[in-house]
Amino acid sequence: MRNNIVHIGAGELVYEIRAIVEIADKLQQMGIKTNMENIGDPIAKGEKIPQWMKEVVADLVMQDCSYGYSPTRGVLETRQFLAEQTNRRGKTQITADDIMFFNGLGDAIQKVYGFLRREARIIGPTPTYSTHSSAEAAHAGTKPISYRLDPDNHWYPDLDDLRLSVKYNPSISGILIINPDNPTGAVYPERILQEMIAIAREYDLFIICDEVYHNIVFNGTSTKPISDIIGEVPALALKGISKEVPWPGARCGWMEVYNADKDPVFQQYVKSILDAKMVEVCSTTLPQKAIPRLLSHPQYPVYLKERKDRYEKFSNIAVEMLQGIPGIKVNRTNGAFYMSVVFKKGQLSDCQSLPIEIDEVRTLVEGLVAEPKVALDKRFVYYLLASTGICVVPLSSFCTMEQGIRITLLERDEQEFKHIFQTLGESITAYLNS
Amino acid sequence: MRNNIVHIGAGELVYEIRAIVEIADKLQQMGIKTNMENIGDPIAKGEKIPQWMKEVVADLVMQDCSYGYSPTRGVLETRQFLAEQTNRRGKTQITADDIMFFNGLGDAIQKVYGFLRREARIIGPTPTYSTHSSAEAAHAGTKPISYRLDPDNHWYPDLDDLRLSVKYNPSISGILIINPDNPTGAVYPERILQEMIAIAREYDLFIICDEVYHNIVFNGTSTKPISDIIGEVPALALKGISKEVPWPGARCGWMEVYNADKDPVFQQYVKSILDAKMVEVCSTTLPQKAIPRLLSHPQYPVYLKERKDRYEKFSNIAVEMLQGIPGIKVNRTNGAFYMSVVFKKGQLSDCQSLPIEIDEVRTLVEGLVAEPKVALDKRFVYYLLASTGICVVPLSSFCTMEQGIRITLLERDEQEFKHIFQTLGESITAYLNS
Amino acid sequence: MRNNIVHIGAGELVYEIRAIVEIADKLQQMGIKTNMENIGDPIAKGEKIPQWMKEVVADLVMQDCSYGYSPTRGVLETRQFLAEQTNRRGKTQITADDIMFFNGLGDAIQKVYGFLRREARIIGPTPTYSTHSSAEAAHAGTKPISYRLDPDNHWYPDLDDLRLSVKYNPSISGILIINPDNPTGAVYPERILQEMIAIAREYDLFIICDEVYHNIVFNGTSTKPISDIIGEVPALALKGISKEVPWPGARCGWMEVYNADKDPVFQQYVKSILDAKMVEVCSTTLPQKAIPRLLSHPQYPVYLKERKDRYEKFSNIAVEMLQGIPGIKVNRTNGAFYMSVVFKKGQLSDCQSLPIEIDEVRTLVEGLVAEPKVALDKRFVYYLLASTGICVVPLSSFCTMEQGIRITLLERDEQEFKHIFQTLGESITAYLNS
Amino acid sequence: MRNNIVHIGAGELVYEIRAIVEIADKLQQMGIKTNMENIGDPIAKGEKIPQWMKEVVADLVMQDCSYGYSPTRGVLETRQFLAEQTNRRGKTQITADDIMFFNGLGDAIQKVYGFLRREARIIGPTPTYSTHSSAEAAHAGTKPISYRLDPDNHWYPDLDDLRLSVKYNPSISGILIINPDNPTGAVYPERILQEMIAIAREYDLFIICDEVYHNIVFNGTSTKPISDIIGEVPALALKGISKEVPWPGARCGWMEVYNADKDPVFQQYVKSILDAKMVEVCSTTLPQKAIPRLLSHPQYPVYLKERKDRYEKFSNIAVEMLQGIPGIKVNRTNGAFYMSVVFKKGQLSDCQSLPIEIDEVRTLVEGLVAEPKVALDKRFVYYLLASTGICVVPLSSFCTMEQGIRITLLERDEQEFKHIFQTLGESITAYLNS
Repeated sequence: MRNNIVHIGAGELVYEIRAIVEIADKLQQMGIKTNMENIGDPIAKGEKIPQWMKEVVADLVMQDCSYGYSPTRGVLETRQFLAEQTNRRGKTQITADDIMFFNGLGDAIQKVYGFLRREARIIGPTPTYSTHSSAEAAHAGTKPISYRLDPDNHWYPDLDDLRLSVKYNPSISGILIINPDNPTGAVYPERILQEMIAIAREYDLFIICDEVYHNIVFNGTSTKPISDIIGEVPALALKGISKEVPWPGARCGWMEVYNADKDPVFQQYVKSILDAKMVEVCSTTLPQKAIPRLLSHPQYPVYLKERKDRYEKFSNIAVEMLQGIPGIKVNRTNGAFYMSVVFKKGQLSDCQSLPIEIDEVRTLVEGLVAEPKVALDKRFVYYLLASTGICVVPLSSFCTMEQGIRITLLERDEQEFKHIFQTLGESITAYLNS
Repeated sequence: MRNNIVHIGAGELVYEIRAIVEIADKLQQMGIKTNMENIGDPIAKGEKIPQWMKEVVADLVMQDCSYGYSPTRGVLETRQFLAEQTNRRGKTQITADDIMFFNGLGDAIQKVYGFLRREARIIGPTPTYSTHSSAEAAHAGTKPISYRLDPDNHWYPDLDDLRLSVKYNPSISGILIINPDNPTGAVYPERILQEMIAIAREYDLFIICDEVYHNIVFNGTSTKPISDIIGEVPALALKGISKEVPWPGARCGWMEVYNADKDPVFQQYVKSILDAKMVEVCSTTLPQKAIPRLLSHPQYPVYLKERKDRYEKFSNIAVEMLQGIPGIKVNRTNGAFYMSVVFKKGQLSDCQSLPIEIDEVRTLVEGLVAEPKVALDKRFVYYLLASTGICVVPLSSFCTMEQGIRITLLERDEQEFKHIFQTLGESITAYLNS
Repeated sequence: MRNNIVHIGAGELVYEIRAIVEIADKLQQMGIKTNMENIGDPIAKGEKIPQWMKEVVADLVMQDCSYGYSPTRGVLETRQFLAEQTNRRGKTQITADDIMFFNGLGDAIQKVYGFLRREARIIGPTPTYSTHSSAEAAHAGTKPISYRLDPDNHWYPDLDDLRLSVKYNPSISGILIINPDNPTGAVYPERILQEMIAIAREYDLFIICDEVYHNIVFNGTSTKPISDIIGEVPALALKGISKEVPWPGARCGWMEVYNADKDPVFQQYVKSILDAKMVEVCSTTLPQKAIPRLLSHPQYPVYLKERKDRYEKFSNIAVEMLQGIPGIKVNRTNGAFYMSVVFKKGQLSDCQSLPIEIDEVRTLVEGLVAEPKVALDKRFVYYLLASTGICVVPLSSFCTMEQGIRITLLERDEQEFKHIFQTLGESITAYLNS
Repeated sequence: MRNNIVHIGAGELVYEIRAIVEIADKLQQMGIKTNMENIGDPIAKGEKIPQWMKEVVADLVMQDCSYGYSPTRGVLETRQFLAEQTNRRGKTQITADDIMFFNGLGDAIQKVYGFLRREARIIGPTPTYSTHSSAEAAHAGTKPISYRLDPDNHWYPDLDDLRLSVKYNPSISGILIINPDNPTGAVYPERILQEMIAIAREYDLFIICDEVYHNIVFNGTSTKPISDIIGEVPALALKGISKEVPWPGARCGWMEVYNADKDPVFQQYVKSILDAKMVEVCSTTLPQKAIPRLLSHPQYPVYLKERKDRYEKFSNIAVEMLQGIPGIKVNRTNGAFYMSVVFKKGQLSDCQSLPIEIDEVRTLVEGLVAEPKVALDKRFVYYLLASTGICVVPLSSFCTMEQGIRITLLERDEQEFKHIFQTLGESITAYLNS
């Protein structure tokens, strides 16, 4: 190359949830039977798509119009259907034009941060889903800014930390809320959301609320979509069908815009996101067409309830099998399908290990953990994977100083599920005592 | 907002191909019957998806795995299938890892330019498909850089212009080739591609070759995929199924990488694009799964031939009906399905008009053309639309100093097609003489 | 111009201290006799350069070597002399290479901020000397970040505000201290400096200490040069002869670097400042050569004491004449030669005025205050100037939310000085009651 | 540091003219007697400041007003004096407000490029004075852009190269002309300047003309100040007293602005430079005050003529002693006081050397030339310095692909001068034949 063509922010693009797969694949080739509990893909974990769903989609596939481009904002009827869903709750009222479709929330997130002015920062939770933090960091050209989720208080946001950060960091222009939360499985009570909105109102910020897990709430908890309580604060809600239907392979998510008319700068920002999408023409058509049919299908609530009941049951099994183990903090998952386990301060060292049977595997892992700057929880993750085949994600890769792991609750087989958490618990104890 | 949150490059995101639709919609509401010849969406123009295609897709839809995430690079078997297609020609050899899927070429284009170092520029054709030029301009924070396509020489690239630009502008780091070309319908002979590659080799540049129309070539012309002649020059080929299958609503395109191992900087750049995709998790699964089945289906070549024959026939009708009209330059379309008509220098003025029947429509159009800085060809486009209902795109919105129009050849009804081009020809004459 | 050539940060460059002069000049032409109390130029206010000083400089001027370039860092003997001054106090020890000369502190300040990485921010006081805040803002491309100086506590820094800002704003990489302070005239006790250094140490920041008024301290107060108490924290002290000698027209200031060897990133940053100076070749030679002779001259301490005594006397006259006036807060000046008067919250409105005799002047001022977004204290400054001829600077132009004025104590004639402050006090009362 | 604080453009700041001094100093300590022919400082080479000049300055030094700040643009009477000098030629007419003073041309150059929009580029000559090219590169964040000076045609600009660069590189917004030129000593005839202006006019660019050597032209050549022929093209001329008076240590240069009123963008750009200077308050007062007295002194033309006569004589000695030596190209110096000698293609290799007497010196030099990426002409410069004590600057450090050296003509002693050039010639021959 006659010039250097590598982008200056290239180094900020890290996504450990998928990077760990490369190691797991190697170990599998060396003979380890793996349990992939790293990624939130229900399908990959054996979730069955109900026959009626498939038929809805197959029916659409037989129509020519499902193959064409859609409007830049998305299929009109679908946006009208979704606007109606929001409006019928009688709170914030929107129109089809307040909805914009993307190729999955990943695409939405890239544009939401990518078309922010470089100096304008969004504060997000720590730990956080790394697609948000990577995109925010890449846009700003520096490290993400975050407010603390408290593992000693149900992983709820530390509101003092948030308020003080907003007050003392004038570049913060918006607040990211993930509710229900990934990676912690927390579901925020309305009063917490209200306080976060109050901070946004007081400091004239906008809110981004990632609600992709909004319909996966259980254990008797309840929360509110941000649109029900947002008042006059400008906000974006991010929604999708990846987790709920579940159809992650559709790459189909959308953004609802609230109170765009309340602030001209916010309105211009939203328009620039639409313009960016228009340059790419539009988003996927078929899943958009399917949305009204799927979500209004009589079997849909039944199906969703069945899944929530299972996650509820398994969330309780998980917490029972892990709580009480010395050296860690555990919170019950009340929404989404992740659990974050935290190692207490000082529990991890770089001398701990787990037994690994196959020599080749041991050599590989010892090489990996000997590399410079391997986080202590990543070290545990490598040993756990090599020793038991259980593949989880180090919590430190979710943009947090906490050390721990994120594990999914997606395994459908109860015996296998119990075995995984039993093994995990024993491995934690063995590792900490090694 | 307590801060300005609008991105500094927000103004570069313009896509006239879709912006004109807003005007057309208004006119339609005022009673104008429109012919939308602005956008390259075969489906919208009545192209039928063959039954066998729908069945292939419907069959996949009945399988759970079509709903899950795909690997970040894309479905492995599909990438192997596509690599094999390239490799079997016996020229450049690639592996599945040299292929990366995106949510349509729009997504690919955003990432290809978006992850270039800001100072590194790509020179592209003028006129050009504006998704390329907008993305390049937004990445650079300034106007796009271009080499001339020559309407007096079959719209072939002006190679002197390209060579001198590369020589005298050291920030140019790569060359964009669109072949077959949008918006001109030109198909480049191998010798021209060879000369372009030679320039890249001499100045140590890489090549981006948009080959989305590669299998839509007719009128006895022939060309080469860039991989057959690239030699050791680093290159990216962009491909997709939007136009060919046609399934634009799938948002499914891919990038083939050639000679990544020949240059470490290029390799790092390609990796940063992969990392950016990983942060968004992956691209659409279902169409990827369909690709091998569709492209290797015995009916596929038959179907494709039928379409090419039709475009060939219609391309000749179009050129016959327009050539000879004073004041314009016309070239026959030999690939893709667009025709670009150029007004000769000095033919357009801001006093010309076409008769408009409905008063309300005339008032609207007169308001539009009275706005400051309306290009002269855009002026013609507004009058044409209001007078005849034919919706085309001004050529000046394809990043060129030429004045003219781009019109699609997608209308399937031969009588209607002839009527459109007859009307267009008469309108041009009437407008120029008004 | 074929391109836009105006820099993106062009709008951040505002310096009200000099901008007000333009208005004063106009009024003077209309017949107003002005007292310029806006700028800290002792010479302009009639300070006499002692004969012995002039002779020292004249003697140098007769030597050829005073006309040549100096080394990039500055004249070696002068740097040795200054290093020795610092070292002899027995605290931080430096060498001549830890000193770098600039064309005045303005030049130093531009380079100190201009060669910081764009994302790295320096927190400074509010109110602050606007050369610092403008340069910091221009480097960052956004508004400056600040900690509060407290008018209810001798204008000392609000240490809680500083600590919380540093804690909650991770982009803060350094702390600016101006001691003695401009525009408040505060002199910080050692314990306050110690706490500021402790914050820098705790959060791994560096310190910039503007000590240009270091030898102009009176009223029995005392402080410390930062080098005496800096410990191992990396720091830059900015010093000069503009105010002290006083020779502002020399454009001669310097930077002392402490603990460069304690942090490799800091060291690289300091080297980049040296490289930037080298590209400009060097700084002014003659004043550098004069420094050792002037500062070690037996008459120098006598001369300095005379001036400090006068400032002390006048600072007490000023405070006596203003304190007790309802609606304002006043602090006695203990260093430098500025006083900042603050209007209490709610005292100013946009209906207040002062009588203006000359019609033409009144018309001009009424036009100025009718412009959009004129700060309320700037409004007062315009009326004061037009009504009395006294030219001061609105406090709001020192990067603060406080409303008030900065006035210099440089007028040498005691009767005139009393008259100015008497008039100012009466005008404040009249304005607030109007 | 908790953050990286090093500026992204830190690496572009290189100034070989001074960097070589560090090596020379080391060699001197090892016993080498050096002749410093690297830097254009007449004073350092023994130029005597005439008594009358010293008296003018000394007289000013006895006045208080010479110590105060000056207006931001500079001392009014001086600007009036300089404007009058330009105006009296009867061509472009300017006012005092079209002149702005800086702390030397280094400061002016930093601001001229530093306050250009990042994407707007200035094309400059190659070879070029590196303060220009470093500042341009740092502002753009990438390599400088240049037009060729032709060593086979008196070092005149290659106008085809300039025209084609401007035509094919749309980011070029201005042209830098250095006339008389540093480092080549060329003086451009009016017709060449006219052609450069014509290019600027045709492509709507502005011109920066560095005229710091304008009054040092000899050998019967003549040229024009840009203001005499600029017509309506916006332009900046950079002037100073460093070389001519000579008073480089004054850091006093100025910019004359022509045709600011012809282009609003240019006007806004010029205003942003003024604003930047205002934030730094002003430039050095004393030399500004001296300018009218010095330049209008009856002895000044006499003095200047004496120097020009000497440079003329020595320029001819130099060319006589070097021309005819195989392997190099030499042009006579007709202005300024530098000569650039070019090695013909293929003459230099990395095996050549010169004898070095002192072992320690030889070891040092062999270490220096063994470092990676040492330019071949820099290699020669090290050997020349170590073998003969003659310190020159490698031509490759003036932003050029040519290999050669720049040497000053400042040595005043004719015998010594002849000895230096004799030795240089012999060393070139010995080195090329080694």
